[in-house]
Amino acid sequence: MKESEMTVLGIDFGGTTVKMAVVRGSEITSETFLIDTQDYSGPDALIDVIVSRITEVRKEFPEIAAIGVGVPGAIDFEEGVTYNLTNVKGWSNVPLRSILSEKTGLPCVVENDANCMTYAEWKHGAGNGFKNVICVTLGTGVGGGLILDGRMYRGSQFAAGEIGQMSIDLNGVPGPYGNDGALERYIGNRQIEDYAQALYQEKGSPVPEDCSPAGLAALAEAGDQIALEAWDWVASCLANCLSSCIYLLNPDAIVIGGGVAHAGDLLFAPLRQKLEASLTEECSGQLQICSARFGNSAGIRGSAALASELV
Amino acid sequence: MKESEMTVLGIDFGGTTVKMAVVRGSEITSETFLIDTQDYSGPDALIDVIVSRITEVRKEFPEIAAIGVGVPGAIDFEEGVTYNLTNVKGWSNVPLRSILSEKTGLPCVVENDANCMTYAEWKHGAGNGFKNVICVTLGTGVGGGLILDGRMYRGSQFAAGEIGQMSIDLNGVPGPYGNDGALERYIGNRQIEDYAQALYQEKGSPVPEDCSPAGLAALAEAGDQIALEAWDWVASCLANCLSSCIYLLNPDAIVIGGGVAHAGDLLFAPLRQKLEASLTEECSGQLQICSARFGNSAGIRGSAALASELV
Repeated sequence: MKESEMTVLGIDFGGTTVKMAVVRGSEITSETFLIDTQDYSGPDALIDVIVSRITEVRKEFPEIAAIGVGVPGAIDFEEGVTYNLTNVKGWSNVPLRSILSEKTGLPCVVENDANCMTYAEWKHGAGNGFKNVICVTLGTGVGGGLILDGRMYRGSQFAAGEIGQMSIDLNGVPGPYGNDGALERYIGNRQIEDYAQALYQEKGSPVPEDCSPAGLAALAEAGDQIALEAWDWVASCLANCLSSCIYLLNPDAIVIGGGVAHAGDLLFAPLRQKLEASLTEECSGQLQICSARFGNSAGIRGSAALASELV
Repeated sequence: MKESEMTVLGIDFGGTTVKMAVVRGSEITSETFLIDTQDYSGPDALIDVIVSRITEVRKEFPEIAAIGVGVPGAIDFEEGVTYNLTNVKGWSNVPLRSILSEKTGLPCVVENDANCMTYAEWKHGAGNGFKNVICVTLGTGVGGGLILDGRMYRGSQFAAGEIGQMSIDLNGVPGPYGNDGALERYIGNRQIEDYAQALYQEKGSPVPEDCSPAGLAALAEAGDQIALEAWDWVASCLANCLSSCIYLLNPDAIVIGGGVAHAGDLLFAPLRQKLEASLTEECSGQLQICSARFGNSAGIRGSAALASELV
């Protein structure tokens, strides 16, 4: 069967909610079913409720032929085992793929969430048609994924794409793993907020109540010069890291998603300008800098796209 | 015919000398023939003399079945055309592969020198047996190449692996393309020398006559504390950039060559320690940091290895 005709179940396993939906090709063809992660004390109980929900969904969609799961953390992709999941306790060394596969009788794939987002954007979104794509998600943390030579690149321990841990300053603020200057420590949600608050104070200007990325975007849209300056600084940090990625990988597209990317041209305009000013013509001439197409549905779409290749 | 049984000609086209040798599998089986690049005014004259030298060599080695050429600069790998070569004038848009192929009647491949070094180390040297390898050359400039998922990764415009242009400091010294903090501007040969001279002056210590990387290595071996400090600083800069490469690509090996790498443990010991201190266990646990096996012969070996896959 062609991938585009296949019906699969995409599951986005988040820190607070498990979301699942039926997907056919690039289309989500059901409502999105939700399970509250925190209601269950450990993997066994949560897996049981996920499986019983899958059983219900399959009654309505018996054509479901495979299952894809995106999880928030490190996994062994080949074995389908979670190493440990961010913000979800008790998920060390859970052989999620084989458990789900055994309990449902369907082929399953388990992938980390940043790679799912990357795969969704490449198969059906902003990265479609490109050979080499770097995807970045800007949120509480900064994550990423890579499509290289037309396929997902996962790295030797399936840990590739950790753009948030790359350094932008060898003498910079400490990162979580001793990695001074880690990008995430500059342009994570909270760090942007902290930077903006300090900037207002430094300029002797009253600190706005909402200095979150969304708040700063609204202020900048309204012409607030300090908010604009904060966005320019975010763009500088991101451009520095991306220029390093580009010199290393010479991609044809960069896809940027996550809440911070909702700032749109406030971020993208200075980012493009700064990248062009720091790259060779060879690297920048044909490079596309795109906004991600899918928001919250990227996890479902990406895990489903991977699942549709199983059958 | 098996690659290991194939006899090919490897050509290393450098800024001052063209070197060529007959290669069979991983063995160089002839003397290395030299042509002085500067004796010829442009591509046509130089190509003519290369071709006549190839003709001579083939009289002695009629079994030569293909030709590989490594060139010092940017190329279109698919078309076999040089964009422009560092330190060699007049080589913009020269269709070197088709010219050589037409004049010799043999299949040819043209690749840039950093990729040739990378391929040589991966096929027959320090990177052999690894799936994902980052190669770095430390010399006048800093270059690199990538083996990803068991094959050469070249990037969308064949410009991947420019490790020397990656930034280690978003507020750092200007790079050649507006890329502030470019690694090459910290640990290129001359930059190491400049840094060491400044360090001796700053410490009120007489500046040694020879502060080149080789000179500094000798001083450090003899216990000179300032020279040791300079090497520690070189290791810090390199570790910062490589940790970013590792977070992005999660390789299983890093191979480091070029003149500066001759410092051996003066560089490698602090480098390994700094990398371990800035990486997750996932990324560093199985990571090998290796010294390149081949020195000046890497270009011949790598271009020959690529050529041996043509037939």
